[in-house]
Amino acid sequence: MCEGPLHTCFDGAQHDTPPVFKLTLRDSLIYLHMLVTESALRTFTQNIFLAMGCNAEHAALATDVLLLSDLRGIDSHGVARLTGYIRLWEKHRINPTPNIQIVHETPTTATIDGDAGLGLVVAPYAMQVAIKKAELYGSGWVAIRNSNHFGIAGYHALMAVEKDMIGFAMTNASPLVTPTFSNERMLGTNPMCYAFPAGKYPPVVVDMATSAAAVGKLEIAQRAGKQVPKGWVQDKDGNDTTDPHALKNGGSLLPLGSDRDHGSHKGFGLSATVDILSAVLSGANYGPWVPPFVAFLEPSDNPVGKGIGHFLGAMRVDGFRPVNEFKDHLDNWVARFKSASPIDPNQKVIIPGEPEYEAEIDRRKNGIPIVDAVVKDLNELAEKLKVSPLTP
Amino acid sequence: MCEGPLHTCFDGAQHDTPPVFKLTLRDSLIYLHMLVTESALRTFTQNIFLAMGCNAEHAALATDVLLLSDLRGIDSHGVARLTGYIRLWEKHRINPTPNIQIVHETPTTATIDGDAGLGLVVAPYAMQVAIKKAELYGSGWVAIRNSNHFGIAGYHALMAVEKDMIGFAMTNASPLVTPTFSNERMLGTNPMCYAFPAGKYPPVVVDMATSAAAVGKLEIAQRAGKQVPKGWVQDKDGNDTTDPHALKNGGSLLPLGSDRDHGSHKGFGLSATVDILSAVLSGANYGPWVPPFVAFLEPSDNPVGKGIGHFLGAMRVDGFRPVNEFKDHLDNWVARFKSASPIDPNQKVIIPGEPEYEAEIDRRKNGIPIVDAVVKDLNELAEKLKVSPLTP
Repeated sequence: MCEGPLHTCFDGAQHDTPPVFKLTLRDSLIYLHMLVTESALRTFTQNIFLAMGCNAEHAALATDVLLLSDLRGIDSHGVARLTGYIRLWEKHRINPTPNIQIVHETPTTATIDGDAGLGLVVAPYAMQVAIKKAELYGSGWVAIRNSNHFGIAGYHALMAVEKDMIGFAMTNASPLVTPTFSNERMLGTNPMCYAFPAGKYPPVVVDMATSAAAVGKLEIAQRAGKQVPKGWVQDKDGNDTTDPHALKNGGSLLPLGSDRDHGSHKGFGLSATVDILSAVLSGANYGPWVPPFVAFLEPSDNPVGKGIGHFLGAMRVDGFRPVNEFKDHLDNWVARFKSASPIDPNQKVIIPGEPEYEAEIDRRKNGIPIVDAVVKDLNELAEKLKVSPLTP
Repeated sequence: MCEGPLHTCFDGAQHDTPPVFKLTLRDSLIYLHMLVTESALRTFTQNIFLAMGCNAEHAALATDVLLLSDLRGIDSHGVARLTGYIRLWEKHRINPTPNIQIVHETPTTATIDGDAGLGLVVAPYAMQVAIKKAELYGSGWVAIRNSNHFGIAGYHALMAVEKDMIGFAMTNASPLVTPTFSNERMLGTNPMCYAFPAGKYPPVVVDMATSAAAVGKLEIAQRAGKQVPKGWVQDKDGNDTTDPHALKNGGSLLPLGSDRDHGSHKGFGLSATVDILSAVLSGANYGPWVPPFVAFLEPSDNPVGKGIGHFLGAMRVDGFRPVNEFKDHLDNWVARFKSASPIDPNQKVIIPGEPEYEAEIDRRKNGIPIVDAVVKDLNELAEKLKVSPLTP
C-alpha cells in the first residue's frame, strides 16, 4: 500500500493540482482512491440533492443517510449510488418534493405513503414516527409504501439506538433472488437490520441482506477475472455456477443458505418476511412487481401497489428493563463473544456492527476513500447539474 | 410403504393385541410407527402433565402446544420430548405450579417471569398478554425470562394469526452453535418465527432454526450410517466435517450460511438477535450460560440471568391496512410464488408453512404416526408415573 499526494495518476493522467490519493488492496484488487474529507463529501452530496430539487432539510437528511454508509465502509450503498438516484429522478420515478403522509394509524402502528420520494428522506421521517410512538407507548411500528431505495438499513435502526431503543429496519428491493426450487427472480436482496444499544461497546448492529451474497461481490469477481464460490448464484436454468457474469446473463442470486440441504428455504423465508412486512402490509409492490432500481428497466405495467416498501420499528429498552441493566448485560454478552475460543488465534469472533463502527471512527478522522471510477462518475454528474466538483 | 394392522412386528416381536402400525420411508430410513388418534395422544399427554403436578388448565395447554408440533409433522418437538421435560422436573428444574408474573410493563411492552415453569405454559400466557396489548394499542411485545423449552415457535405466533394479527416468536436454547471463526459452542439453534394470516390460503409461517441444520438431522444420519453434507457441523478444532457424530464428540453446529463465504456471519447475526431479544432484554441466561435442555448436564454455577428466555410479539393487521385488503394481497403473493418458474417441473416452490398445514389436515383426520422407539419411551414413562399407556 502506498499513500500520499501524487502529481501523476497511475493511469498516466496529469492533475493540475496534487490530489490526495491512496492505493488500497482489497479482495485481491488494487484500488485507486481519492481521500475525501467528510465535510467535503457532505457539501458535494447536498449540492447534488439541492440540484435535484430537494429542499435544504431533505437534501441534508438524504446526504446524512448516504454518508453514514460511506463512513461505515459500506461503499456500495453510499455516494456511489448518487448517479442511480439522479437517473430515477430524470425518469420522474423519484419525486424530490414529496408530501409524506400517515394514511392509517393506531397508537403504536402506522402506514406511511412516501409520495414517490427518496427513501433516504421517507424512511428517516417514518422512523421518527415510530420513535415518537415508542416514546408514548413503549413501541412503534411503521410500514411504508410508495418509496424508493432507502440506503443502508442500519441508518434507520441506529436512529432508535440513539434514544436507548432497539431499532428494526427492513426493505424490499428489485427482484434478483430466487425462492428455493425456482429459477425465476422473485425477491430482492431484502435486507433486515436489528440494532441494540450497548454501554461501553459500540451498538450491536445486525444488518444483512437475506441473499447468500451481495451483487457487489459478483462485480468484484468480474473485475478481478475470478470465479465465485458455488452457492452464490445460479444460471438461467437454475444450475449452480461459479460464473460471476451469470446474474447479468439471466441467472439469479441464491437465498442465504444457498441450497436446500444448507437451509436456502430459511433464507427464502426471511426474504419473504421482509417482502410481506414491507409491501403486503403497507400497500407497496412485492415479489416480482417491485420496481427496479436501475432506470433503464421499466417498472411493471400492472403494479400491485405503490413504489417499494419498508418496515421500521422501535422499542424502548426501558419498556422491558432499566436501560443500565440492559447495557451492562449487553456489554457482558459482547465481551464473552469476543473472547470465544478462536479457530485461528489471529481471527477472533467479530461482533455484528463492530467493523463498521471502527471504519466510522477511522474515516471521520482520516477521510473517506472514494474509488477513482466513482469520483469520475460523480464529477460528470456535477458538471451536468452545474454543481462544484468533488475535491479532497 | 405398507400399511395395516400387524400381529407380528418387523423385529419379530409378538403383540398381544393387534396395534395399528405403519411403515414409512423417510430420509432413506424405514420407520415403524404406531398410528395414534389425536384424541388418544391428547389424553395420554395430559395425564403425564397432570402426574407431573400441573393443574388441569396448564396440563391441557402444555398438551395443546406439544400436539400441534406432532400434528404439523415436526416430530422432534412434540411428544417425543415428554421424557425430557419429565427428567428436568425430576431434577427440580421445571416448576409444575409456576406463579407467572408481569414484572415490568408499558402499554405495549412487558417482561414476564415464568417462575421456572414449562415454556409450554409460560409462552402461551405471555402471548396472550402481547395479544391483549395489541388489541388495545395496535401491537404488543413480551420478553420472558425464567422459562424452559417452549415447543415449536409456530404455536405461539399462530395464536396471533387467529386474531388477524401478525405473530412473532423466538427463543434461545442450549449452546450447540458456534459464531463464525470460533470453535466454541456459544448459541442455541435459536429459532425465529414470523406468521401472517392469509385469506383462502393457509397462514404463511416462517419458523426456522438459525443454524444451518437441526440436531435431528444429524441423528437421522447417525441411524442411517451416513455422512452429512459439509457445512452442517464442525469438529472440536473447528474443521468442517461430514461426520454425523462430530457434535457428540465436542464439535458444534454451524450457523445458517455454514461458512464466512456463504454468509455464516448472517446466521450468527440472526442467532445473536434471538439471544439478545430473548435473554439480554428479559433477564434470562444468554450465550454459553443458557441451561442445557438435557437433564444430565448441569446448568452453569454462575448464571447471568434466570432460566431460558423467549421473545413474543403481535401486531394487528388492521393497524396498517384493512384486514381483507391484506389477506387479498397475501393470497396474491402466495399464488404468484407458487407459480414461480420451477427448475424441476415436479418440484414447485414451497410456501413457508404449507407442508406443515398439509400435515396437520392429514394427521387430524388419519392419526399421528409415533415412531416405535418413542412409543416405548412414552409407555415406560406412563408406567413410572402410573398413567394409562398410549394406545392407538
